[in-house]
Amino acid sequence: MKMLLNDSMIERTNIVDIEDRGYQFGDGIYEVIGVYEGRTFLLDEHLQRLQRSASELRISLPYTLENLKAKLNELVKVNELNEGVIYLQVTRGTAERWHQFPENTRPNLVAYTKEEEVMTELEESGAKAVLTEDIRWLRCDIKTLNLLPNVLAKQKAIENGAVEAIMHRGNIVTEGSASNVFIVKDGTVYTHPANNYILNGITRQKVLEICRKNKIAVHEETFTVDDLFQADEVFITATKLDIIPIIQVNERIIGNGKRGKVAETLLQDFRASIHHLVEN
Amino acid sequence: MKMLLNDSMIERTNIVDIEDRGYQFGDGIYEVIGVYEGRTFLLDEHLQRLQRSASELRISLPYTLENLKAKLNELVKVNELNEGVIYLQVTRGTAERWHQFPENTRPNLVAYTKEEEVMTELEESGAKAVLTEDIRWLRCDIKTLNLLPNVLAKQKAIENGAVEAIMHRGNIVTEGSASNVFIVKDGTVYTHPANNYILNGITRQKVLEICRKNKIAVHEETFTVDDLFQADEVFITATKLDIIPIIQVNERIIGNGKRGKVAETLLQDFRASIHHLVEN
Repeated sequence: MKMLLNDSMIERTNIVDIEDRGYQFGDGIYEVIGVYEGRTFLLDEHLQRLQRSASELRISLPYTLENLKAKLNELVKVNELNEGVIYLQVTRGTAERWHQFPENTRPNLVAYTKEEEVMTELEESGAKAVLTEDIRWLRCDIKTLNLLPNVLAKQKAIENGAVEAIMHRGNIVTEGSASNVFIVKDGTVYTHPANNYILNGITRQKVLEICRKNKIAVHEETFTVDDLFQADEVFITATKLDIIPIIQVNERIIGNGKRGKVAETLLQDFRASIHHLVEN
Repeated sequence: MKMLLNDSMIERTNIVDIEDRGYQFGDGIYEVIGVYEGRTFLLDEHLQRLQRSASELRISLPYTLENLKAKLNELVKVNELNEGVIYLQVTRGTAERWHQFPENTRPNLVAYTKEEEVMTELEESGAKAVLTEDIRWLRCDIKTLNLLPNVLAKQKAIENGAVEAIMHRGNIVTEGSASNVFIVKDGTVYTHPANNYILNGITRQKVLEICRKNKIAVHEETFTVDDLFQADEVFITATKLDIIPIIQVNERIIGNGKRGKVAETLLQDFRASIHHLVEN
């Protein structure tokens, strides 16, 4: 298995120094990019978000996005990945351990691929989620490696037989541990606005675009835990998870306990845009 | 230079896999242990805190604390470290990247030493700090690798010619980016209580003990930004920084702009306990 280490394609091996700032501070950013039928999906959007994260943390990306795009596509090809994801991470670099930014340090970029099938079954049957208090920092809009609260939330979900933990800050639902959350009420779709309390998911943005294209009313507005329980539909979005209906939250059944019409329509359209990509 | 990798003492080299959970999630804990005149200081206290952090995150330490203590003392010896610190880190281990805890994964423990002199000059002259909003998560009591907000705060300090950023959540002063904060008013010492908003520093605990032994009134109580500005003395504590007087916060001079009597007394006693250790 090959991996990308800065500008070289190498056999996968231990390459991280213990003073890589990613290892000691989580001082870095990442993206997980979907690959369907051997093709990257929404790669430009992921790279633009990477650029934004880098800029918020004042990390200089070592390559142009065009250059990086070419390298990532090459990685998919040499690893013969058909269904899965690219995991891409950039840290501030390796330097003697002091909290402040080191001077003259070159960022460390690594990327590798991972096989992962679309969860077709869950997309149809729907899945369970649990609620958990959102205890994260106040810059959730940056896709950083400081993921421990997300890890703890996801672990809580798994231990409760759920696929995802839905976080709420006080009474306001923010997002999932690794997904965005949408509700549908009386035909209107709601999701938390893209501010510092959530990560603006690439699949989230695609779903908003599909809603608008299909004239489905959609509001980027906060909603409460109670709104979630009372919703006609709940669904989550994430790279390669795509659109998973949530039919139960804690012990409460959502709507009629089955995938709703809106989630179904959106997923069909989402699939269509993937196929469109693959055929072009 | 040797490093400890699990139970082996090896030449320092790149040993971290890109799927080490420390690298991808910051899913790990650490300690920085002071070494003075070739001897570790308060090592038991550091290891007990490590054990607590591990237990809060359900990471199983790979060795008994006794075993680890012996290995760390050996590391100091083989690296011939006289003045400096041991950096010790334990991550949940290496596993395919999924947020939830992996099954049957062995934690990765690394430790190395770093030369570092006591900042005698700053301890006498005092130093400047800047204020910054505390935007961290709500489990600051665990010494985890999710340090990005601390990195950003420290960077702000350095760019403003200060040694430390003092964080406040709303109006309440919590702690420094890598230190605890104390104020003195009318002969009484105040510091934020050891709850989920701060890390309970080992030097902090030692300073509280010295206060009590010397009959200096001390309260573990929250205080405000305004209390900080109005204090007779402000000082910060951290491993190997020991006790640094803060004589300026932003543009405001604290007290008479010089090290205060309480900080001086505490530092003398702190030094005495180090010498006591070394002579025994």
